[in-house]
Amino acid sequence: MPTSHPVVQLLLTGNEIMSGDTVDSNSAMIAQRLAELGLVIRRKVTVGDDQALLREEVSAISSAADVLIINGGLGPTVDDLTAQVLAEAAGVPLREHAGALAHLKQWCARRNIPLNDANFKQAMLPRGAAMIENLIGSAVGIQMELNGCLLICTPGVPGELRPMLDPIMETLSKRFGLSSRVEVVRLQTFGMGEATAQQIIDDGVEQWPESVALGFRAGAPQVEVKLTISGPSHRPELEYCKQRIHELLGSHIIGEGDIRLAQRVVELLRQQGKMLTTAESCTGGQIAAMLTGIPGASAVFQAGFVSYADQIKSSVLGVDQDVLAEHGAVSEPVARQMAQGAMAAAAADYAIAVTGIAGPDGGTEEKPVGTVWLAWGSREKLQTRCLCWPVERSLFQTLIAAAGLDMIRRSLLGVAGESHYFFQRGAGQIKVPGAE
Amino acid sequence: MPTSHPVVQLLLTGNEIMSGDTVDSNSAMIAQRLAELGLVIRRKVTVGDDQALLREEVSAISSAADVLIINGGLGPTVDDLTAQVLAEAAGVPLREHAGALAHLKQWCARRNIPLNDANFKQAMLPRGAAMIENLIGSAVGIQMELNGCLLICTPGVPGELRPMLDPIMETLSKRFGLSSRVEVVRLQTFGMGEATAQQIIDDGVEQWPESVALGFRAGAPQVEVKLTISGPSHRPELEYCKQRIHELLGSHIIGEGDIRLAQRVVELLRQQGKMLTTAESCTGGQIAAMLTGIPGASAVFQAGFVSYADQIKSSVLGVDQDVLAEHGAVSEPVARQMAQGAMAAAAADYAIAVTGIAGPDGGTEEKPVGTVWLAWGSREKLQTRCLCWPVERSLFQTLIAAAGLDMIRRSLLGVAGESHYFFQRGAGQIKVPGAE
Repeated sequence: MPTSHPVVQLLLTGNEIMSGDTVDSNSAMIAQRLAELGLVIRRKVTVGDDQALLREEVSAISSAADVLIINGGLGPTVDDLTAQVLAEAAGVPLREHAGALAHLKQWCARRNIPLNDANFKQAMLPRGAAMIENLIGSAVGIQMELNGCLLICTPGVPGELRPMLDPIMETLSKRFGLSSRVEVVRLQTFGMGEATAQQIIDDGVEQWPESVALGFRAGAPQVEVKLTISGPSHRPELEYCKQRIHELLGSHIIGEGDIRLAQRVVELLRQQGKMLTTAESCTGGQIAAMLTGIPGASAVFQAGFVSYADQIKSSVLGVDQDVLAEHGAVSEPVARQMAQGAMAAAAADYAIAVTGIAGPDGGTEEKPVGTVWLAWGSREKLQTRCLCWPVERSLFQTLIAAAGLDMIRRSLLGVAGESHYFFQRGAGQIKVPGAE
Repeated sequence: MPTSHPVVQLLLTGNEIMSGDTVDSNSAMIAQRLAELGLVIRRKVTVGDDQALLREEVSAISSAADVLIINGGLGPTVDDLTAQVLAEAAGVPLREHAGALAHLKQWCARRNIPLNDANFKQAMLPRGAAMIENLIGSAVGIQMELNGCLLICTPGVPGELRPMLDPIMETLSKRFGLSSRVEVVRLQTFGMGEATAQQIIDDGVEQWPESVALGFRAGAPQVEVKLTISGPSHRPELEYCKQRIHELLGSHIIGEGDIRLAQRVVELLRQQGKMLTTAESCTGGQIAAMLTGIPGASAVFQAGFVSYADQIKSSVLGVDQDVLAEHGAVSEPVARQMAQGAMAAAAADYAIAVTGIAGPDGGTEEKPVGTVWLAWGSREKLQTRCLCWPVERSLFQTLIAAAGLDMIRRSLLGVAGESHYFFQRGAGQIKVPGAE
């Protein structure tokens, strides 16, 4: 079994990628999975849906590389050319593939739609090619040999590509005698930017071990901190770094792996047997949507309220009309009463309430776009906070929704303090009347 | 002045792109700007920060293309190799460039930092090369000739690349005598898959004009149909195709350009001076979040309800407990009463109500995961429909939320019938009691 690392190249196809209509995130996904086997992509070529160009690239790359992963062009439409191109490059005809046809029939049957010509096209694979199962979509993957190179064709839809990478990694691992020696720890954080996290770690760890690679991935609203080692002999250094980062970032760490803020909140509520409700104005249902996106959320979340208008804040959540008139909808007492009203209406133990100005219109000099009051906690301990986060509307909504979830996470954990974001964006200190 | 279009290729460099730590959005930005001049990128190659590989690519591509745009590798660190590679490929030395040095001195002065060695490296350009101004960062762009090809080197930081593309487009426009001639029409549709849309157009248009390029972009929940022509002389064919597609896809077309379903619904409600409310169970706030994602939504959407639990359906939305007990939460009468209750509580003219089983748990033999009852319309005309869409939870939630918005869109437009999706996924016909 060969143990030297194979040369891997990537070929991406799609007019929508060349035109810039779509940003390619698939090659990042593929690269990350390959890294688990210690493989790096040597070179990546991207071309549009052009049959001659594609054929030329397939021929050239297959002669130079040990593995060529092709992404895109497996769909049902006329501009999906991959199978055709492979057949031409290999000098074999397209044949109906029994497994692919069975997959397509089943896929159509599950959707109660007839197998049309466009879909049937997806059952035609180059003669001699094997199919790779697509657990989600209609387009099966294709695996074949050309010029001594292993060709692997994958679908362009990210949700279909993701699960297909499991059997592909297994194939590569077997064929080239690779085993995953790389170990990765990923820590999900909320409440500080990438640069801040980097600075805190740089300042806090004097002798960072060379064997541990440190990386960051900023994705609103979370920032992932990634530690990578090349093999188990470096585990002590990995453990050391992980521990130091836990000390340095502390309560900003949500958890390990892929965990999302809402998922952690649902977990904590389940463990404590508590119910949460939401009263949202400027986030307009995003907190509820984040929570109910988690399987099993119904055990801890029974009701949410989107109270965009003042009269709904009164009629549904029982916010005092005089308070609304005196303080305005974006105010501390209104956020507080929204939370209390939601807990009463939903018979919940905890609430998150949000009232603010998402923009682009609606700001005033006193309360500019980006101003928001949050209230969170239980009947016994309801806290409030004013933030000012003047960013583009949808980012504002995402960040404020996450900020609300983060504060409930901290409450449920009994963690004192607040995130860096709050410190930076705060227009007022946290208020805890019970503690005053 | 030459008028034939130059062959443009792109070379991207950066280990962070190859490893997947960074997703490349720069080439999309470049492609979109090139499209304004009617230019398409023929081929894009991406490699890591590897001097030999980069030199090889620069030599090969410059011999094949009229324009090579290089992105990345202009920074101050050791792995920024572009200038060095260009000098080697051209067989010229690196020389201190007066303009680049002046730029660096000014850049450092503005930041009150000394010009260090790392930054000074950025003033060394291949002999004979011209600089392209960087309005934001320290790294100037580089422009030079190699093998009869125009080489243009741009910085990898998106915020620095963006303004630099203005003078670059001007250079290309002058050199190749180009002006913006390409015209694009994009139609947003909901209610049929990419394959179905393609099939309907294939079947419906016998003689598709060659001058009009047809493309599809599937993005849950919408599918974009894109028509492109290379210049104004093909406008009659473009108009013809657009008209035929309107006839064929009919009410599945939401609108032109970038429009989203929720945006169209907000527009229609504004035009008609009507208010909408939502009562969501399995979509958990997603419909509300889609609506409130649209600036100005507050004029037509004042309140939404997430009623995950049965008792909330009763206490907040007034759903009859006997009806709940008899028919279950996922049933036609419950969906109907949720919509009616939401309209009453929110004093709204229209409602969308959704109650279903998002999974992965909670299904039964009679009502499997993916079963959902929708109710939509006004007090006078409230329609209901059962669908069965057994897909992964988050996709289910997105598609059902969109389906609800689409039915209100159809109601507001007075459009009869339903989408292909409903036809395929339907577990029962639309019920319009008023029409029975």
